[in-house]
Amino acid sequence: MLGASHTSVKTDLSFVHPRLLADCFWVCDLSFSTVLLMNNAHWPWLIVVPRGVNLVELQDMDDKMRHGVWDEVNRAGLILQKLFQPKKINTAALGNMVPQLHIHVIARFENDIAWPKPVWCVEDKKAYDEKALHARMDDLRLAFAKP
Amino acid sequence: MLGASHTSVKTDLSFVHPRLLADCFWVCDLSFSTVLLMNNAHWPWLIVVPRGVNLVELQDMDDKMRHGVWDEVNRAGLILQKLFQPKKINTAALGNMVPQLHIHVIARFENDIAWPKPVWCVEDKKAYDEKALHARMDDLRLAFAKP
Repeated sequence: MLGASHTSVKTDLSFVHPRLLADCFWVCDLSFSTVLLMNNAHWPWLIVVPRGVNLVELQDMDDKMRHGVWDEVNRAGLILQKLFQPKKINTAALGNMVPQLHIHVIARFENDIAWPKPVWCVEDKKAYDEKALHARMDDLRLAFAKP
Repeated sequence: MLGASHTSVKTDLSFVHPRLLADCFWVCDLSFSTVLLMNNAHWPWLIVVPRGVNLVELQDMDDKMRHGVWDEVNRAGLILQKLFQPKKINTAALGNMVPQLHIHVIARFENDIAWPKPVWCVEDKKAYDEKALHARMDDLRLAFAKP
């Protein structure tokens, strides 16, 4: 599991689709969801994965979970805004490739390689190097650890 | 205003960005948002526009409005599922082009022209003809009118 070396926290990620596990680093667990960091240094790009059984569509969540998950997506967006001062936050639940329900929260900049198109329209991927990853993980985990 | 001829309902759309008004038809008003239909017959494509002043990011909504808006987005998705039996619902708040907060809710099919890419990666646009628009509007408004 990518990112496991960046923390001593043990968490159960068996519910997460293998494709997400392969593409992302684990950041933290919240009450309703698990937060991952996409291994693409072009953008600060979080994936919020609601914890539940057989969730595919947003419509598969009950009211309580929906409100809780969107509160956590909101928090992820606020953290990206504070840490990176982006021009825009892009938030999306697509799932055309990976069926498990997951919500992208992405910091966008006018000089990023896809702007103003959505990031999925650009194939280019840039893996984090070890140093940049450590720094990003520290910043993100510190921010999510605050109440 | 596109779509005004399809209903006798009078509604105030002065809060909606001119670009959205130009690209969409008005469907209905809900408690927290106004629902539009994108004038692109390639997909059943709704735009949920939260009603509020100077909303740009999802993070600009307070808790009550956030929960209410996502309940209404949920309803829009359920209606698209029921009416069109899509392979997937795509839901996204992007706003890189039109700054006003608006949430796309799109029915996706494995044989649509963009699948599995997001719809914004394809430039092709297909305006509704009058007959198809009337039929779609009737279906959507009937569905939203139900409790």
